[in-house]
Amino acid sequence: MCLDYYRIKSAGATHNIEVKPESLDALVTGFFDGGLALQNMMIAAQSVGLSTVTIGAIRAFSDEIRTELNLPEHVLPLVGLVVGYANTEVSVTPKPRLPQSATVFFEQYDDTNIVADVQSYDEEILGYNATREGQKSTAGWIEKTAGFYTKNVNPKFVNQLKNAGFKLEE
Amino acid sequence: MCLDYYRIKSAGATHNIEVKPESLDALVTGFFDGGLALQNMMIAAQSVGLSTVTIGAIRAFSDEIRTELNLPEHVLPLVGLVVGYANTEVSVTPKPRLPQSATVFFEQYDDTNIVADVQSYDEEILGYNATREGQKSTAGWIEKTAGFYTKNVNPKFVNQLKNAGFKLEE
Repeated sequence: MCLDYYRIKSAGATHNIEVKPESLDALVTGFFDGGLALQNMMIAAQSVGLSTVTIGAIRAFSDEIRTELNLPEHVLPLVGLVVGYANTEVSVTPKPRLPQSATVFFEQYDDTNIVADVQSYDEEILGYNATREGQKSTAGWIEKTAGFYTKNVNPKFVNQLKNAGFKLEE
Repeated sequence: MCLDYYRIKSAGATHNIEVKPESLDALVTGFFDGGLALQNMMIAAQSVGLSTVTIGAIRAFSDEIRTELNLPEHVLPLVGLVVGYANTEVSVTPKPRLPQSATVFFEQYDDTNIVADVQSYDEEILGYNATREGQKSTAGWIEKTAGFYTKNVNPKFVNQLKNAGFKLEE
């Protein structure tokens, strides 16, 4: 799945309208709308008995995909989606989610209990990771998720965005 | 709905892990994941007889919302969502969508027919806008959508992102 401002740019040109989709606001809007579309695709697949796996890692190979798929300027790969039939021989326990107390606030953001709530969730995930079907792990959620963000996950991304025609200054 | 890296940063600190979510990759991932979550919220609302309207315009008031909701660093407003009961006295015709020939490609991006496809859709939307219930319009899709992107929609966005702790250089 790609973000595509090339299409409206091409169509605008036929009306003598010069489309400028290089801004950061246009970029994040494209990612957000991609999320909306992908969730619909996943739910639609599920509704006809198919299962999906989202491949976020393709962002790191944006330039390579640009070449392989012949993507024009202002088209940018967002995610890949594998569609298929899930292995039903493994019974899957849904992964617990963060408690609402750590994710939903009323009137104002309130971080009073946020660390305690996340620590409690961390304990829950430690148990889940140790006993779930399939790939087990001894890592908690905090260690794994915080560890993921100790550095820039995709240091090539700024250049990839520039290669796709985004300016990132405005 | 906000993107929130403050939570994992706070939790990581309890494990002596320094979380650095300032990169553009982390930013767009947050927007994408927000899209996934919002689509689920809208479908869930619909499933219990509620209707929703997404408010994308809140991005332009990011700083004001930051103050009003007391948002910490690395928390950023994405969209608002109005939930309520739709006016059932107005019968609504679903808006036609872009043809798949302009949005789905196999193996490689192919712009051979993209302008013609969009122009054909533009005609369809002109008819829809002129005859639909509620607010009518004489604008086509190209004129409206291309016109929207003739300038940076949200020129304050770069500063707003910096105010939220994002670096935008890496």
